[in-house]
Amino acid sequence: MTQHALVVGASRGIGLELTRQLLEAGYVVHAASRRPTEARELMRLAARHPELHPVAMDLTDEESIASAVAEVGSRTERLHRVLVVAGVLHGPGFGPERKLEELTAEALSAVFAVNAFGPILVAREVLPLLRHDEPAVFASLSARVGSISDNHKGGWYAYRASKAAQNMLTRTLTIELGRRAKNVCVLALHPGTVDTDLSKPFQRFVPEEQLFDVQRAARQLLDLTEQATPEQSGSFYAWDGSIIPW
Amino acid sequence: MTQHALVVGASRGIGLELTRQLLEAGYVVHAASRRPTEARELMRLAARHPELHPVAMDLTDEESIASAVAEVGSRTERLHRVLVVAGVLHGPGFGPERKLEELTAEALSAVFAVNAFGPILVAREVLPLLRHDEPAVFASLSARVGSISDNHKGGWYAYRASKAAQNMLTRTLTIELGRRAKNVCVLALHPGTVDTDLSKPFQRFVPEEQLFDVQRAARQLLDLTEQATPEQSGSFYAWDGSIIPW
Repeated sequence: MTQHALVVGASRGIGLELTRQLLEAGYVVHAASRRPTEARELMRLAARHPELHPVAMDLTDEESIASAVAEVGSRTERLHRVLVVAGVLHGPGFGPERKLEELTAEALSAVFAVNAFGPILVAREVLPLLRHDEPAVFASLSARVGSISDNHKGGWYAYRASKAAQNMLTRTLTIELGRRAKNVCVLALHPGTVDTDLSKPFQRFVPEEQLFDVQRAARQLLDLTEQATPEQSGSFYAWDGSIIPW
Repeated sequence: MTQHALVVGASRGIGLELTRQLLEAGYVVHAASRRPTEARELMRLAARHPELHPVAMDLTDEESIASAVAEVGSRTERLHRVLVVAGVLHGPGFGPERKLEELTAEALSAVFAVNAFGPILVAREVLPLLRHDEPAVFASLSARVGSISDNHKGGWYAYRASKAAQNMLTRTLTIELGRRAKNVCVLALHPGTVDTDLSKPFQRFVPEEQLFDVQRAARQLLDLTEQATPEQSGSFYAWDGSIIPW
């Protein structure tokens, strides 16, 4: 049977590479990004792969999420993989805070809208496509810095807290789907530090062997989702399969 | 030496009662609420107590927070207790979600603005008044349902996640103040279920001996803040002094 995947944040970085690898693995891929027609590599990939369907989705706009998922739903009644990869660390006028005085309400709103609220609003919309009798996975990218108990360094107020909120939403979703959609495994995944735009300013602090290229990062994440069983639902995994505490 | 306390969310419920008890204990109390002139009990209390200073603060507006704290700063150079008690569970058109389909972007934004972003933006503004050579406490009300690892029932997406975010912000603040303001103990406090407007719809699920009146709840919270030492900074305490896991 054909397997369908939805990747949210597919225009570049990890999401684009996940899209490539899912296509290689035989999936029909619905690749969502804010402005897919402006995403050159994604469009080039779509020109070569008829089983790739770019779709416009703005994670900060629930109506946009709903209409994107409706578009996906017009092509398939079932999704088997939903991977929400989009995330914000920097934005216009803000970045990861080194001290409290740098934190602004605007940064909090912008970062939470994408990192915390985005994945759960996607979950709400895709739920009818995920509830069926085949195994399915709903995974979103979290981050080790979103672990409250593992927070020893401080800083990065908005990003850290958005990921903690996302983790709670993941956990709450897991409990609900455990009753309503037992075929779905819900995962929060920490990709490690990956050589993408998001991590560029911090790569100098990361030992070379711990900085993954996107191919490796995507492969590791896909391995986790492909091996996931319903019993693992609700786990917060690092790239190597180790459990991260909340 | 005169001790100064700032209570945020002082117009009713636990905040109003904390204000009363702090006055009894001899504090000068700066009592912040959205529209203090409309808060009849607070105004009545202020008429009897010259050491009570109502001040207008809208937690969802960082400029309002800044100007309120500037007003407090015109009356004292030092704060010894900052208690952020305001919280949102219900609002126009939303309430604690029983299932995913009830969750809206609007509810997420409204609940996070007060519960998660409010306390840390207050912390940012009061920091200059908290850094001095006397013991000080910055405490915000969290909730046991904000514990990710203690989440077994699910539901209440927005509220739970806002409290998890608040907990992460508390933890991050603790780390920073541990370097910059060693006199400040930062606490996240779970008051238990208290007989207030917020808990009204759920009180029927709570055994009578576990439903506290506001006098008892405020007393228990004040005991925790009065006994707090800098070594306890960063703790998430229930009303009885037990530690709640993140």
